[in-house]
Amino acid sequence: MLLDHLRRAPVRRAARTFFSTTACKSTETKPRRRIVFSGIQPTGTPHLGNFLGALQNWVKLQQDASADDTLLFSIVGWHSLTLPQDPKQLSIARRDLLAALLAIGLDPKRSIIFHQDENPYHTQLSWVFSCITPVGKLRRMTTWKSRLATSRNANDESEVDESMLNTGLFTYPVLQAADILLYKATHVPVGEDQKQHIELARDIGDIFNRQFRNTFPLPEYIATTTRRVLSLKDPTSKMSKSSPDMSSRILLTDTEKEIRKKIRGAVTDSTAGITYDPVNRLGAANLLTILAACTEEDVLEVAKRYETKGHGDLKNDVADAVVALLEKPRTEFERLRGEQDYLAQVALEGAEKATAYSARTMQEVRKAIGLL
Amino acid sequence: MLLDHLRRAPVRRAARTFFSTTACKSTETKPRRRIVFSGIQPTGTPHLGNFLGALQNWVKLQQDASADDTLLFSIVGWHSLTLPQDPKQLSIARRDLLAALLAIGLDPKRSIIFHQDENPYHTQLSWVFSCITPVGKLRRMTTWKSRLATSRNANDESEVDESMLNTGLFTYPVLQAADILLYKATHVPVGEDQKQHIELARDIGDIFNRQFRNTFPLPEYIATTTRRVLSLKDPTSKMSKSSPDMSSRILLTDTEKEIRKKIRGAVTDSTAGITYDPVNRLGAANLLTILAACTEEDVLEVAKRYETKGHGDLKNDVADAVVALLEKPRTEFERLRGEQDYLAQVALEGAEKATAYSARTMQEVRKAIGLL
Repeated sequence: MLLDHLRRAPVRRAARTFFSTTACKSTETKPRRRIVFSGIQPTGTPHLGNFLGALQNWVKLQQDASADDTLLFSIVGWHSLTLPQDPKQLSIARRDLLAALLAIGLDPKRSIIFHQDENPYHTQLSWVFSCITPVGKLRRMTTWKSRLATSRNANDESEVDESMLNTGLFTYPVLQAADILLYKATHVPVGEDQKQHIELARDIGDIFNRQFRNTFPLPEYIATTTRRVLSLKDPTSKMSKSSPDMSSRILLTDTEKEIRKKIRGAVTDSTAGITYDPVNRLGAANLLTILAACTEEDVLEVAKRYETKGHGDLKNDVADAVVALLEKPRTEFERLRGEQDYLAQVALEGAEKATAYSARTMQEVRKAIGLL
Repeated sequence: MLLDHLRRAPVRRAARTFFSTTACKSTETKPRRRIVFSGIQPTGTPHLGNFLGALQNWVKLQQDASADDTLLFSIVGWHSLTLPQDPKQLSIARRDLLAALLAIGLDPKRSIIFHQDENPYHTQLSWVFSCITPVGKLRRMTTWKSRLATSRNANDESEVDESMLNTGLFTYPVLQAADILLYKATHVPVGEDQKQHIELARDIGDIFNRQFRNTFPLPEYIATTTRRVLSLKDPTSKMSKSSPDMSSRILLTDTEKEIRKKIRGAVTDSTAGITYDPVNRLGAANLLTILAACTEEDVLEVAKRYETKGHGDLKNDVADAVVALLEKPRTEFERLRGEQDYLAQVALEGAEKATAYSARTMQEVRKAIGLL
């Protein structure tokens, strides 16, 4: 299940990606000036899956951006409310996630890093959009069903029905469209499962442009090659904050000792030699994926090096690679966690920048619809 | 149809009441400190029906309030977007309605008079509430069906279905709950058709209080005696901004000459003598209702005075009464329309007061849900 990572966890949870960005491969000709927007839900300490999935790619986006590109990375607190949260944990997760974004290398001087819920225009534009979005369009969005299924620990989407659905979970694609269009974003890197929401955002922008005034560029979906990191204990499912087994995931806060222990304990098979077989040899394939991601190599080339080696060798090398990858972010994360005043300052400045950046859009919208 | 006045008008439209307040008769023991909230949609120049319905009662509420009561009267711009509007007309109507509220005697020094869409917290609290409101609860609200039917000029609610419904129209009762609870309103004067929305607001407040922290007093429905002013040309329907026949309604902007002409042309019957028979003699009953409302008498007592008189006499007296009633508001309205700087200042101060008043609630909410 693509959305396993949304399932509720009994204790501390890992971050749930809002748009799961991975390596970005845009097939379109690059426009002169890009406005890139992406968001992540503050639902816990990021784990290796988040890191190799969305977060590392945000850093790459920042590195590869042209000087006149605008980059917006948002912690989308309003969205996290669409499934039940523990308020105390959410409050901590929200601050931790900002620390994590900085720790992995996002630079608040280069990118606008902010809490979505601290820019008042998101919900306002969302309301405006809701008034031009047919209910029928939302009904065709399928993500709420899978999110609801995972949050209820249902085995299948057929087990959930609308009687369990709250209005926020039903309408969040409209808020997501507002998140994107508020900044007139041109590029939104998303995972395959979120593609339909970008289509909806384009739809809504188009309805607005035609019904009122040409205001919004239609954002482009940036196809991402999904780098799906699986549970170390049950590689049939994604690495997830929701598993009660803490050894199934590696957190950004894990020590070297913990990382090595978890990887040593990863489930593999008893077949001799290593091959990349993501159908029949899930555990080994997952380790190869992690290693390839850490070293930025092709997974098949990595696999070739281990043809004649054993799982122990592979695990050692994966552990080395993960420890090396996470060492700096982890240290930095722990350091930043102790700097709450600094984090508050970054959050404030981010909110101010995001609000100022979007104020003009909102003013244009108000003028176009007659609320000015 | 109760909601005829919501129908789209081809040209200038009269105000659509959001909560149609009329004479307030609370059967409950009066609490020590009341917070009264009501709203009206800015969809055109108010007509006599709005004036004798909601607006005059707001003035009464202001007059009768204790010194420690808080009164909030809001022009609910976000709600007006739930049905299609002409942006230019909406922009004018929005400013005109503020002028009208002042013209009829609402005092911005005593009451907080403001544009809902200028306090950023309404849509934020609405989002929070949407995440705890089951879609099923909204589906049981029936007002969207009738509003949709009237906006489509359908004869019957069975002619409209969900395929025509936009998300804003479906979810506006949640925004309405936020409008009310944001100020911790204790009393909300509404017409019968809006009673279910107050119930929903109580429901949502109760869910929030139980799920997070006791934050919201549950607002009380103030029963109102409905004073229903009918069309002068087709007394089977309500006096409405939507009728293409301008002579069917009296606007706050009508001159004495226009008022007299419209009342003289009011449809009555050819039966001799006047009786109050709101089933068989709708036209005369409507005139009696208007007269009784203007003179603040019981309609049956008024009727008794005309038992032996003709429709001409009644029309003359109704015209006199309406001219007298509207003269001062009309003059004041026209004067205020010329004072756009003053109106802008009143709007600004109202928005600032409303925002400051509700900031504490929103802070409490953020803390309770974990977004702080």
